[in-house]
Amino acid sequence: MNDITLSPERMSAAGEDISAYMQAVGVAARDAARITRRADTQQKNSALLAMAQHLESGRSRVLEANADDLRRGQENGLDAALLDRLALNNARVDAMIEGLRQVAALPDPVGEIDGLRARPSGIQVGKMRVPLGVIGIIYESRPNVTLEAASLCLKSGNACILRGGSEASASNAALNECIQAGLRDAGLPAGSVQVVATTDRAAVGELISMPEFVDVIIPRGGKSLIERISREARVPVIKHLDGICHVYIDASADLEKALAIAVNAKTHRYGTCNTMETLLLDAPIADALLPHLASAYGEHQVELRGCARTCNILPDAVAASEEDWSTEYLAPVLAIKVVDGIDEAITHIERFGSHHTDAIVTENYHLARHFMASVDSSSVIVNASTRFADGFEYGLGAEIGISTDKLHVRGPVGLEGLTTQKYVVLGDGQVRQ
Amino acid sequence: MNDITLSPERMSAAGEDISAYMQAVGVAARDAARITRRADTQQKNSALLAMAQHLESGRSRVLEANADDLRRGQENGLDAALLDRLALNNARVDAMIEGLRQVAALPDPVGEIDGLRARPSGIQVGKMRVPLGVIGIIYESRPNVTLEAASLCLKSGNACILRGGSEASASNAALNECIQAGLRDAGLPAGSVQVVATTDRAAVGELISMPEFVDVIIPRGGKSLIERISREARVPVIKHLDGICHVYIDASADLEKALAIAVNAKTHRYGTCNTMETLLLDAPIADALLPHLASAYGEHQVELRGCARTCNILPDAVAASEEDWSTEYLAPVLAIKVVDGIDEAITHIERFGSHHTDAIVTENYHLARHFMASVDSSSVIVNASTRFADGFEYGLGAEIGISTDKLHVRGPVGLEGLTTQKYVVLGDGQVRQ
Repeated sequence: MNDITLSPERMSAAGEDISAYMQAVGVAARDAARITRRADTQQKNSALLAMAQHLESGRSRVLEANADDLRRGQENGLDAALLDRLALNNARVDAMIEGLRQVAALPDPVGEIDGLRARPSGIQVGKMRVPLGVIGIIYESRPNVTLEAASLCLKSGNACILRGGSEASASNAALNECIQAGLRDAGLPAGSVQVVATTDRAAVGELISMPEFVDVIIPRGGKSLIERISREARVPVIKHLDGICHVYIDASADLEKALAIAVNAKTHRYGTCNTMETLLLDAPIADALLPHLASAYGEHQVELRGCARTCNILPDAVAASEEDWSTEYLAPVLAIKVVDGIDEAITHIERFGSHHTDAIVTENYHLARHFMASVDSSSVIVNASTRFADGFEYGLGAEIGISTDKLHVRGPVGLEGLTTQKYVVLGDGQVRQ
Repeated sequence: MNDITLSPERMSAAGEDISAYMQAVGVAARDAARITRRADTQQKNSALLAMAQHLESGRSRVLEANADDLRRGQENGLDAALLDRLALNNARVDAMIEGLRQVAALPDPVGEIDGLRARPSGIQVGKMRVPLGVIGIIYESRPNVTLEAASLCLKSGNACILRGGSEASASNAALNECIQAGLRDAGLPAGSVQVVATTDRAAVGELISMPEFVDVIIPRGGKSLIERISREARVPVIKHLDGICHVYIDASADLEKALAIAVNAKTHRYGTCNTMETLLLDAPIADALLPHLASAYGEHQVELRGCARTCNILPDAVAASEEDWSTEYLAPVLAIKVVDGIDEAITHIERFGSHHTDAIVTENYHLARHFMASVDSSSVIVNASTRFADGFEYGLGAEIGISTDKLHVRGPVGLEGLTTQKYVVLGDGQVRQ
């Protein structure tokens, strides 16, 4: 690896070969990861707190850079939602500073040893939690993700390579100055956090094809971006695809709880992945409950798309098409289906759901257990809103995303999801017989 | 998926389209996985014990089928090592039967809930251990792997698709009869364990490209096979690449323990992945220890390949080339290097090792901790032989392989490695504020 002596900064400024640039970024990350994985909690925390200070003192420069990005975005005709996610203001900078301090306050997962047990041979065997190594994060034009990702990767002892959306490049460069100043203050290498300095899309292709330098890729963004990255990556990917979440209200449910949960799961926020998209109603309570639901959803202007039995009870509901059952609306729209019992509900969830978060409302002990055991989703909830499927609500203290994968980490991903475990063996001269 | 109505057996017999055949296998596995993941411990164990009985009563048919495979193998000029791995006899059938009973006796990991804790919102959150789903296992012509893989996948609640080497096809078909009879006796679907009935190599390409039907691929075999599968797979892979394992003997070591460990790590078995391939010796003890080591290795006819300093002390040692440091000999050959202290040893391991298993021999508390924290390998061992890196020695009760990956599972993989965790939330009507 010694033949790669190009400096990332110099090269990208000159617009030179992207592949060589990303290789150099990879080498720097791998080298830094050898330091960050041994850095103690104190050193990592002092870097995070120093970043917060530099962000405080560099606030005006960050806001100016962001204004440049916004001006360019408007000239390029970005839509309002994109501009809103791109925009920083004092409150959002405050939130980033607070976020850094919160991550510094979290317990350090690295080095924890689980279940050290004596074996008949006389050795003791346990599992030590250790960083993954180098994490590549690909995200859209949301500058707050830059600090969030940097802080979570660093706290968990990883080096990271951050590739944000090109629309936020000036903002990310300004934030990177705060990050680098913080790393310097704490005596950590610059390669611990690298913000990719080129907006060339080829850099993403390189980043996901360097298993020698990158241990895992976490893409954050729209489904099509994530699908493309997953398909093309030669590095393992931890991803979130979609959230087609269900609430099943069983005939045994407490109807007041059911109503509250069904309304909250849909209307608390529309654009989040743990929002309910389909409500499944057990037939015996459909007549009694649907009018109340319709009235509550009406207050929130939620459009209802129902199966034939639903539309019989609610003549104002739109007839749902087959496609509705597998649509993530992310909008004030709800599909409703009347089912004959829990097994039809489970079969529907299995067929149309996305294995993200599914809930049952029931007072029946046996059915609650049956639903928990049978539904193969990253979060299975009894008698609470799907909106609880969240790293903060679960007590992880932070969240880099929600994994819809089954391997390595499933559901909300906090610091622990950015680590792995190695076996440690303590002996006193034992040899194998 | 209802349009795939072809029967796997019928199709392969007719040598029809491999892709459609494998799709049908995939559909059957996915359907079966819905049953196996809910099967209780009793039902899974009774299937395993019934398989053992059918293997006992079908022993002669299995041995006859194996004799056919051996005859064909000899005609095709298979080498002696391959024929040995292919061969079954009464003792090996006994071992397979015993293996099935041992897996039945293991604790069932499925359904275990970890750390159910109350959150400020009033919900309780924990993690439930659940099967991965469908596991594809690709292996060479070792019929014993067929039952081992089937039993571990079933006990962990997974359906599996087994693709063994074509040289063992008659043996595997006979073993499959015992497996199917056991599944039938226990009332589990035939698709719970499927032995791929075609020897066409295209079946492997299909198996690793069906993420809709297969959740993870575990390839077992030579490094080139595993590399190719990892490169081409569109399904996550849990793999073992190579074992370039080190023992570092520090100047503070107890020299008797050091000698015993160094000899055991190399000579206990030569062909295993946790065998030491390179010995690193701290300079201050090289003069005293090397002659004793040379004499001990001489008794085992181990060829020594040393660095310049080693060869100065041991004139009979062969001079090691750069390539020796990164070679997995799997043979009575050992590379030896004299280093100046623990950090040179760690750097050497980082550069030339395979992150499998590395050991230190030391009586120094600080260095033991430093080595444990710094060496990024799936097993890090203090004062014991590398040969302990093994699922049985670690107390996993079984082992489907040793993962050299970092994600999901690292080191020896037992039943738990074939499962994942989902979040379970217990509420009492809570909604998100």
